[in-house]
Amino acid sequence: MPFVNVLITKDGATREQKAQVIKEITDTLQRVLNKVPKQTHIVIEEIDTDNWGFGGETTTVIRKRQAG
Amino acid sequence: MPFVNVLITKDGATREQKAQVIKEITDTLQRVLNKVPKQTHIVIEEIDTDNWGFGGETTTVIRKRQAG
Amino acid sequence: MPFVNVLITKDGATREQKAQVIKEITDTLQRVLNKVPKQTHIVIEEIDTDNWGFGGETTTVIRKRQAG
Amino acid sequence: MPFVNVLITKDGATREQKAQVIKEITDTLQRVLNKVPKQTHIVIEEIDTDNWGFGGETTTVIRKRQAG
Amino acid sequence: MPFVNVLITKDGATREQKAQVIKEITDTLQRVLNKVPKQTHIVIEEIDTDNWGFGGETTTVIRKRQAG
Amino acid sequence: MPFVNVLITKDGATREQKAQVIKEITDTLQRVLNKVPKQTHIVIEEIDTDNWGFGGETTTVIRKRQAG
Repeated sequence: MPFVNVLITKDGATREQKAQVIKEITDTLQRVLNKVPKQTHIVIEEIDTDNWGFGGETTTVIRKRQAG
Repeated sequence: MPFVNVLITKDGATREQKAQVIKEITDTLQRVLNKVPKQTHIVIEEIDTDNWGFGGETTTVIRKRQAG
Repeated sequence: MPFVNVLITKDGATREQKAQVIKEITDTLQRVLNKVPKQTHIVIEEIDTDNWGFGGETTTVIRKRQAG
Repeated sequence: MPFVNVLITKDGATREQKAQVIKEITDTLQRVLNKVPKQTHIVIEEIDTDNWGFGGETTTVIRKRQAG
Repeated sequence: MPFVNVLITKDGATREQKAQVIKEITDTLQRVLNKVPKQTHIVIEEIDTDNWGFGGETTTVIRKRQAG
Repeated sequence: MPFVNVLITKDGATREQKAQVIKEITDTLQRVLNKVPKQTHIVIEEIDTDNWGFGGETTTVIRKRQAG
Protein backbone atom coordinates (compact mmCIF):
# COMPACT_ATOMS: atom_id res chain seq x y z
CA MET A 1 0.00 0.00 0.00
CA PRO A 2 2.44 2.61 -1.07
CA PHE A 3 1.93 6.32 -1.10
CA VAL A 4 4.46 8.35 -3.07
CA ASN A 5 4.81 12.13 -2.97
CA VAL A 6 6.89 13.61 -5.80
CA LEU A 7 7.93 17.24 -5.38
CA ILE A 8 9.40 19.01 -8.42
CA THR A 9 9.88 22.60 -9.43
CA LYS A 10 7.09 24.00 -11.61
CA ASP A 11 8.74 23.85 -15.04
CA GLY A 12 5.97 23.05 -17.44
CA ALA A 13 5.87 19.28 -17.06
CA THR A 14 3.12 18.15 -19.43
CA ARG A 15 0.12 16.00 -18.56
CA GLU A 16 1.73 13.20 -20.60
CA GLN A 17 5.04 13.43 -18.75
CA LYS A 18 3.30 13.33 -15.38
CA ALA A 19 1.25 10.30 -16.49
CA GLN A 20 4.49 8.58 -17.55
CA VAL A 21 6.13 9.26 -14.17
CA ILE A 22 3.08 7.83 -12.40
CA LYS A 23 3.10 4.74 -14.63
CA GLU A 24 6.80 4.04 -14.16
CA ILE A 25 6.92 4.52 -10.38
CA THR A 26 3.86 2.27 -9.99
CA ASP A 27 5.58 -0.36 -12.15
CA THR A 28 8.79 -0.10 -10.11
CA LEU A 29 6.96 -0.62 -6.83
CA GLN A 30 5.08 -3.59 -8.25
CA ARG A 31 8.11 -5.26 -9.82
CA VAL A 32 10.65 -4.64 -7.04
CA LEU A 33 8.48 -4.71 -3.90
CA ASN A 34 5.44 -6.64 -5.09
CA LYS A 35 3.11 -3.74 -4.30
CA VAL A 36 -0.41 -3.88 -5.77
CA PRO A 37 -1.00 -1.05 -8.30
CA LYS A 38 -4.64 -0.69 -7.19
CA GLN A 39 -3.34 0.29 -3.75
CA THR A 40 -0.57 2.57 -5.01
CA HIS A 41 -1.25 6.31 -4.89
CA ILE A 42 1.17 8.89 -6.28
CA VAL A 43 0.83 12.64 -5.82
CA ILE A 44 2.97 15.07 -7.82
CA GLU A 45 3.33 18.58 -6.44
CA GLU A 46 4.81 21.31 -8.62
CA ILE A 47 6.53 24.03 -6.58
CA ASP A 48 7.15 27.63 -7.67
CA THR A 49 10.89 28.29 -8.10
CA ASP A 50 10.63 31.14 -5.55
CA ASN A 51 9.60 28.53 -2.99
CA TRP A 52 12.31 25.92 -3.60
CA GLY A 53 15.61 26.57 -1.90
CA PHE A 54 18.83 24.80 -2.70
CA GLY A 55 22.28 25.60 -1.38
CA GLY A 56 20.82 28.50 0.59
CA GLU A 57 19.28 30.28 -2.41
CA THR A 58 15.96 30.08 -4.21
CA THR A 59 15.86 28.22 -7.50
CA THR A 60 14.73 31.48 -9.12
CA VAL A 61 18.01 33.15 -8.19
CA ILE A 62 20.14 30.13 -9.13
CA ARG A 63 18.58 29.95 -12.60
CA LYS A 64 18.97 33.66 -13.26
CA ARG A 65 22.66 33.40 -12.52
CA GLN A 66 23.01 30.29 -14.70
CA ALA A 67 21.14 32.00 -17.53
CA GLY A 68 23.13 35.23 -17.08
CA MET B 1 0.45 18.18 19.43
CA PRO B 2 -0.90 16.62 16.32
CA PHE B 3 -0.32 17.78 12.80
CA VAL B 4 -2.60 16.30 10.16
CA ASN B 5 -2.12 16.62 6.41
CA VAL B 6 -5.16 15.69 4.31
CA LEU B 7 -4.55 15.24 0.59
CA ILE B 8 -7.61 15.02 -1.67
CA THR B 9 -8.23 15.46 -5.36
CA LYS B 10 -9.43 18.95 -6.32
CA ASP B 11 -13.16 18.32 -6.76
CA GLY B 12 -14.83 21.47 -5.60
CA ALA B 13 -14.95 20.77 -1.87
CA THR B 14 -16.65 23.81 -0.38
CA ARG B 15 -15.35 26.01 2.41
CA GLU B 16 -18.07 24.57 4.66
CA GLN B 17 -17.11 20.97 3.88
CA LYS B 18 -13.46 21.67 4.60
CA ALA B 19 -14.39 23.38 7.89
CA GLN B 20 -16.45 20.31 8.82
CA VAL B 21 -13.54 17.93 8.07
CA ILE B 22 -11.25 20.08 10.24
CA LYS B 23 -13.78 20.12 13.08
CA GLU B 24 -14.37 16.37 13.03
CA ILE B 25 -10.71 15.31 12.82
CA THR B 26 -9.86 17.69 15.68
CA ASP B 27 -12.71 16.18 17.73
CA THR B 28 -11.53 12.63 16.96
CA LEU B 29 -7.99 13.37 18.10
CA GLN B 30 -9.25 15.01 21.29
CA ARG B 31 -11.74 12.27 22.17
CA VAL B 32 -9.64 9.22 21.24
CA LEU B 33 -6.10 10.39 21.99
CA ASN B 34 -6.70 13.25 24.42
CA LYS B 35 -4.97 15.75 22.13
CA VAL B 36 -5.52 19.45 22.89
CA PRO B 37 -7.41 21.21 20.05
CA LYS B 38 -5.38 24.41 20.55
CA GLN B 39 -2.30 22.40 19.58
CA THR B 40 -3.92 20.54 16.68
CA HIS B 41 -3.14 21.82 13.19
CA ILE B 42 -4.77 20.39 10.06
CA VAL B 43 -3.75 21.25 6.50
CA ILE B 44 -5.91 20.22 3.54
CA GLU B 45 -4.21 20.12 0.15
CA GLU B 46 -6.33 19.82 -3.00
CA ILE B 47 -4.47 18.11 -5.84
CA ASP B 48 -5.20 18.47 -9.56
CA THR B 49 -6.48 15.18 -11.01
CA ASP B 50 -3.59 15.24 -13.54
CA ASN B 51 -1.21 15.04 -10.59
CA TRP B 52 -2.83 12.18 -8.64
CA GLY B 53 -1.96 8.71 -9.84
CA PHE B 54 -3.77 5.56 -8.83
CA GLY B 55 -3.28 2.08 -10.23
CA GLY B 56 -0.65 3.44 -12.61
CA GLU B 57 -2.90 6.04 -14.26
CA THR B 58 -3.81 9.64 -13.52
CA THR B 59 -7.18 10.30 -11.93
CA THR B 60 -8.02 12.39 -15.00
CA VAL B 61 -7.74 9.32 -17.24
CA ILE B 62 -9.58 7.04 -14.80
CA ARG B 63 -12.53 9.43 -14.56
CA LYS B 64 -12.80 9.90 -18.31
CA ARG B 65 -13.05 6.16 -18.76
CA GLN B 66 -15.63 5.87 -15.99
CA ALA B 67 -17.65 8.72 -17.48
CA GLY B 68 -17.34 7.27 -20.98
CA MET C 1 -8.73 9.26 -3.12
CA PRO C 2 -7.59 10.78 0.08
CA PHE C 3 -4.27 10.28 1.77
CA VAL C 4 -4.04 11.42 5.38
CA ASN C 5 -0.84 11.72 7.38
CA VAL C 6 -1.33 12.05 11.15
CA LEU C 7 1.74 13.11 13.14
CA ILE C 8 1.54 12.80 16.92
CA THR C 9 4.08 12.66 19.72
CA LYS C 10 4.99 9.13 20.80
CA ASP C 11 2.94 8.79 23.98
CA GLY C 12 1.87 5.20 24.12
CA ALA C 13 -1.19 5.36 21.88
CA THR C 14 -2.54 1.81 21.82
CA ARG C 15 -3.27 -0.30 18.78
CA GLU C 16 -6.98 0.09 19.57
CA GLN C 17 -6.77 3.88 19.79
CA LYS C 18 -4.95 4.10 16.48
CA ALA C 19 -7.54 1.81 14.85
CA GLN C 20 -10.28 4.08 16.19
CA VAL C 21 -8.61 7.21 14.78
CA ILE C 22 -8.30 5.50 11.39
CA LYS C 23 -11.94 4.43 11.45
CA GLU C 24 -13.26 7.87 12.41
CA ILE C 25 -11.19 9.87 9.92
CA THR C 26 -12.20 7.48 7.12
CA ASP C 27 -15.85 7.91 8.15
CA THR C 28 -15.53 11.70 8.20
CA LEU C 29 -14.06 11.80 4.69
CA GLN C 30 -16.78 9.50 3.39
CA ARG C 31 -19.67 11.34 5.04
CA VAL C 32 -18.51 14.93 4.44
CA LEU C 33 -16.64 14.65 1.13
CA ASN C 34 -18.09 11.45 -0.34
CA LYS C 35 -14.65 9.81 -0.48
CA VAL C 36 -14.57 6.04 -1.01
CA PRO C 37 -13.10 4.20 2.03
CA LYS C 38 -11.42 1.62 -0.23
CA GLN C 39 -9.36 4.47 -1.68
CA THR C 40 -8.63 6.19 1.64
CA HIS C 41 -5.19 5.61 3.15
CA ILE C 42 -4.19 6.95 6.56
CA VAL C 43 -0.67 6.84 7.97
CA ILE C 44 0.01 7.63 11.63
CA GLU C 45 3.56 8.59 12.55
CA GLU C 46 4.60 8.71 16.21
CA ILE C 47 7.40 11.19 16.85
CA ASP C 48 9.86 11.12 19.76
CA THR C 49 9.32 14.11 22.06
CA ASP C 50 12.97 15.15 21.50
CA ASN C 51 12.11 15.60 17.83
CA TRP C 52 8.92 17.64 18.15
CA GLY C 53 9.42 21.34 18.71
CA PHE C 54 6.74 23.76 19.81
CA GLY C 55 7.18 27.39 20.77
CA GLY C 56 10.91 27.07 20.16
CA GLU C 57 11.49 24.20 22.60
CA THR C 58 11.33 20.43 22.35
CA THR C 59 8.29 18.70 23.80
CA THR C 60 10.67 16.86 26.15
CA VAL C 61 11.71 20.16 27.76
CA ILE C 62 8.16 21.53 27.86
CA ARG C 63 6.86 18.43 29.63
CA LYS C 64 9.66 18.38 32.19
CA ARG C 65 8.85 21.96 33.15
CA GLN C 66 5.12 21.21 33.33
CA ALA C 67 5.80 18.10 35.46
CA GLY C 68 8.28 19.99 37.64
CA MET D 1 21.30 15.65 3.14
CA PRO D 2 18.43 17.50 4.67
CA PHE D 3 15.06 18.12 3.15
CA VAL D 4 12.91 20.74 4.86
CA ASN D 5 9.24 21.37 4.17
CA VAL D 6 7.88 24.65 5.54
CA LEU D 7 4.09 25.03 5.57
CA ILE D 8 2.70 28.50 6.24
CA THR D 9 -0.63 30.19 5.65
CA LYS D 10 -0.78 32.21 2.42
CA ASP D 11 -0.34 35.73 3.77
CA GLY D 12 1.61 37.58 1.15
CA ALA D 13 5.13 36.52 2.13
CA THR D 14 7.38 38.27 -0.36
CA ARG D 15 9.99 36.66 -2.58
CA GLU D 16 12.65 38.34 -0.42
CA GLN D 17 11.21 37.01 2.83
CA LYS D 18 11.05 33.49 1.44
CA ALA D 19 14.66 33.76 0.22
CA GLN D 20 15.68 34.90 3.71
CA VAL D 21 13.92 31.93 5.37
CA ILE D 22 15.69 29.56 2.97
CA LYS D 23 19.06 31.17 3.66
CA GLU D 24 18.68 31.07 7.44
CA ILE D 25 17.42 27.49 7.71
CA THR D 26 20.24 26.32 5.43
CA ASP D 27 22.73 28.17 7.65
CA THR D 28 21.24 26.64 10.82
CA LEU D 29 21.52 23.11 9.44
CA GLN D 30 25.11 23.71 8.35
CA ARG D 31 26.23 25.34 11.60
CA VAL D 32 24.42 23.06 14.07
CA LEU D 33 24.38 19.72 12.25
CA ASN D 34 27.25 20.14 9.78
CA LYS D 35 24.93 19.59 6.80
CA VAL D 36 26.26 20.55 3.36
CA PRO D 37 24.26 23.45 1.82
CA LYS D 38 24.63 21.97 -1.68
CA GLN D 39 22.65 18.95 -0.45
CA THR D 40 20.04 20.95 1.49
CA HIS D 41 16.67 21.41 -0.18
CA ILE D 42 13.90 23.54 1.32
CA VAL D 43 10.35 23.72 0.00
CA ILE D 44 7.93 26.38 1.22
CA GLU D 45 4.22 25.70 0.71
CA GLU D 46 1.71 28.51 1.20
CA ILE D 47 -1.71 27.24 2.26
CA ASP D 48 -5.04 29.01 1.78
CA THR D 49 -6.53 30.03 5.14
CA ASP D 50 -9.69 28.01 4.30
CA ASN D 51 -7.48 24.92 4.23
CA TRP D 52 -5.58 25.40 7.50
CA GLY D 53 -7.39 24.29 10.61
CA PHE D 54 -6.38 25.15 14.14
CA GLY D 55 -8.28 24.45 17.32
CA GLY D 56 -11.06 22.87 15.27
CA GLU D 57 -11.73 25.92 13.07
CA THR D 58 -10.32 27.21 9.80
CA THR D 59 -7.86 30.08 9.97
CA THR D 60 -10.31 32.08 7.87
CA VAL D 61 -12.93 31.89 10.64
CA ILE D 62 -10.42 32.56 13.43
CA ARG D 63 -9.13 35.70 11.72
CA LYS D 64 -12.62 37.06 11.02
CA ARG D 65 -13.46 36.77 14.70
CA GLN D 66 -10.17 38.40 15.73
CA ALA D 67 -10.73 41.23 13.25
CA GLY D 68 -14.36 41.63 14.32
CA MET E 1 15.40 19.23 -8.06
CA PRO E 2 13.02 16.52 -7.12
CA PHE E 3 12.31 15.24 -3.66
CA VAL E 4 10.42 11.95 -3.48
CA ASN E 5 8.92 10.46 -0.33
CA VAL E 6 7.95 6.78 -0.62
CA LEU E 7 5.76 5.42 2.18
CA ILE E 8 5.31 1.66 2.36
CA THR E 9 4.21 -0.77 5.06
CA LYS E 10 7.10 -2.34 6.99
CA ASP E 11 7.27 -5.75 5.34
CA GLY E 12 10.92 -6.68 5.33
CA ALA E 13 12.01 -4.85 2.17
CA THR E 14 15.71 -5.62 1.86
CA ARG E 15 18.53 -3.12 1.51
CA GLU E 16 18.94 -4.29 -2.10
CA GLN E 17 15.26 -3.81 -2.92
CA LYS E 18 15.28 -0.30 -1.49
CA ALA E 19 18.44 0.54 -3.45
CA GLN E 20 16.72 -0.71 -6.61
CA VAL E 21 13.63 1.44 -5.98
CA ILE E 22 15.86 4.49 -5.47
CA LYS E 23 17.79 3.75 -8.67
CA GLU E 24 14.68 3.28 -10.81
CA ILE E 25 12.77 6.33 -9.57
CA THR E 26 15.87 8.49 -10.08
CA ASP E 27 16.19 7.10 -13.63
CA THR E 28 12.50 7.77 -14.35
CA LEU E 29 12.76 11.39 -13.23
CA GLN E 30 15.89 11.90 -15.32
CA ARG E 31 14.54 10.24 -18.45
CA VAL E 32 10.99 11.63 -18.39
CA LEU E 33 11.46 15.05 -16.76
CA ASN E 34 15.15 15.71 -17.38
CA LYS E 35 15.87 16.00 -13.65
CA VAL E 36 19.51 15.87 -12.57
CA PRO E 37 20.27 12.76 -10.43
CA LYS E 38 22.71 14.71 -8.26
CA GLN E 39 19.80 16.91 -7.20
CA THR E 40 17.30 14.07 -6.72
CA HIS E 41 16.66 12.94 -3.16
CA ILE E 42 14.44 9.98 -2.30
CA VAL E 43 13.36 9.03 1.21
CA ILE E 44 11.69 5.68 1.92
CA GLU E 45 9.68 5.42 5.13
CA GLU E 46 8.54 2.00 6.36
CA ILE E 47 5.35 2.18 8.42
CA ASP E 48 4.19 -0.35 11.02
CA THR E 49 1.02 -2.13 9.85
CA ASP E 50 -0.77 -0.93 13.03
CA ASN E 51 -0.22 2.62 11.81
CA TRP E 52 -1.41 2.26 8.20
CA GLY E 53 -5.15 2.45 7.70
CA PHE E 54 -6.96 1.45 4.55
CA GLY E 55 -10.71 1.20 4.04
CA GLY E 56 -11.24 2.25 7.66
CA GLU E 57 -9.17 -0.57 9.19
CA THR E 58 -5.52 -1.02 10.07
CA THR E 59 -3.41 -3.14 7.74
CA THR E 60 -2.76 -5.45 10.70
CA VAL E 61 -6.48 -6.29 10.91
CA ILE E 62 -6.91 -6.61 7.14
CA ARG E 63 -4.00 -9.06 6.88
CA LYS E 64 -5.20 -11.20 9.78
CA ARG E 65 -8.56 -11.59 8.09
CA GLN E 66 -6.94 -12.41 4.73
CA ALA E 67 -4.65 -14.96 6.41
CA GLY E 68 -7.54 -16.43 8.38
CA MET F 1 0.86 28.94 11.98
CA PRO F 2 3.83 27.25 10.51
CA PHE F 3 4.52 23.55 10.45
CA VAL F 4 8.07 22.55 9.56
CA ASN F 5 9.21 19.01 8.76
CA VAL F 6 12.98 18.51 8.82
CA LEU F 7 14.25 15.26 7.30
CA ILE F 8 17.89 14.34 7.95
CA THR F 9 19.91 11.15 7.76
CA LYS F 10 20.26 9.35 11.10
CA ASP F 11 23.77 10.38 12.08
CA GLY F 12 23.72 10.68 15.81
CA ALA F 13 22.37 14.22 16.12
CA THR F 14 22.20 14.87 19.85
CA ARG F 15 19.20 16.03 21.84
CA GLU F 16 20.95 19.38 22.29
CA GLN F 17 21.60 19.80 18.57
CA LYS F 18 17.99 19.04 17.73
CA ALA F 19 16.79 21.51 20.38
CA GLN F 20 19.08 24.16 18.84
CA VAL F 21 17.70 23.51 15.32
CA ILE F 22 14.15 23.86 16.66
CA LYS F 23 15.01 27.08 18.48
CA GLU F 24 16.69 28.68 15.46
CA ILE F 25 14.04 27.78 12.89
CA THR F 26 11.31 29.05 15.22
CA ASP F 27 13.29 32.32 15.64
CA THR F 28 13.74 32.66 11.87
CA LEU F 29 10.02 32.27 11.20
CA GLN F 30 9.17 34.80 13.90
CA ARG F 31 11.74 37.38 12.84
CA VAL F 32 11.32 37.11 9.05
CA LEU F 33 7.64 36.20 8.68
CA ASN F 34 6.19 37.40 11.98
CA LYS F 35 4.96 33.90 12.85
CA VAL F 36 3.93 33.30 16.48
CA PRO F 37 6.24 30.74 18.20
CA LYS F 38 3.32 29.31 20.21
CA GLN F 39 1.77 28.27 16.88
CA THR F 40 4.98 26.98 15.32
CA HIS F 41 5.47 23.21 15.28
CA ILE F 42 8.66 21.56 14.03
CA VAL F 43 9.10 17.82 13.53
CA ILE F 44 12.54 16.32 12.90
CA GLU F 45 12.65 12.89 11.29
CA GLU F 46 15.90 10.93 11.24
CA ILE F 47 16.13 8.54 8.29
CA ASP F 48 18.28 5.40 8.07
CA THR F 49 21.01 5.82 5.43
CA ASP F 50 19.68 2.70 3.64
CA ASN F 51 16.43 4.61 3.09
CA TRP F 52 17.83 7.89 1.78
CA GLY F 53 18.70 7.93 -1.90
CA PHE F 54 20.77 10.59 -3.60
CA GLY F 55 22.05 10.57 -7.16
CA GLY F 56 20.46 7.16 -7.68
CA GLU F 57 22.27 5.43 -4.80
CA THR F 58 21.59 4.96 -1.11
CA THR F 59 23.53 7.12 1.31
CA THR F 60 24.94 3.91 2.80
CA VAL F 61 26.63 3.08 -0.51
CA ILE F 62 27.83 6.64 -1.11
CA ARG F 63 29.46 6.83 2.31
CA LYS F 64 31.16 3.47 1.98
CA ARG F 65 32.75 4.60 -1.27
CA GLN F 66 33.81 7.93 0.26
CA ALA F 67 35.27 6.15 3.27
CA GLY F 68 36.96 3.55 1.06
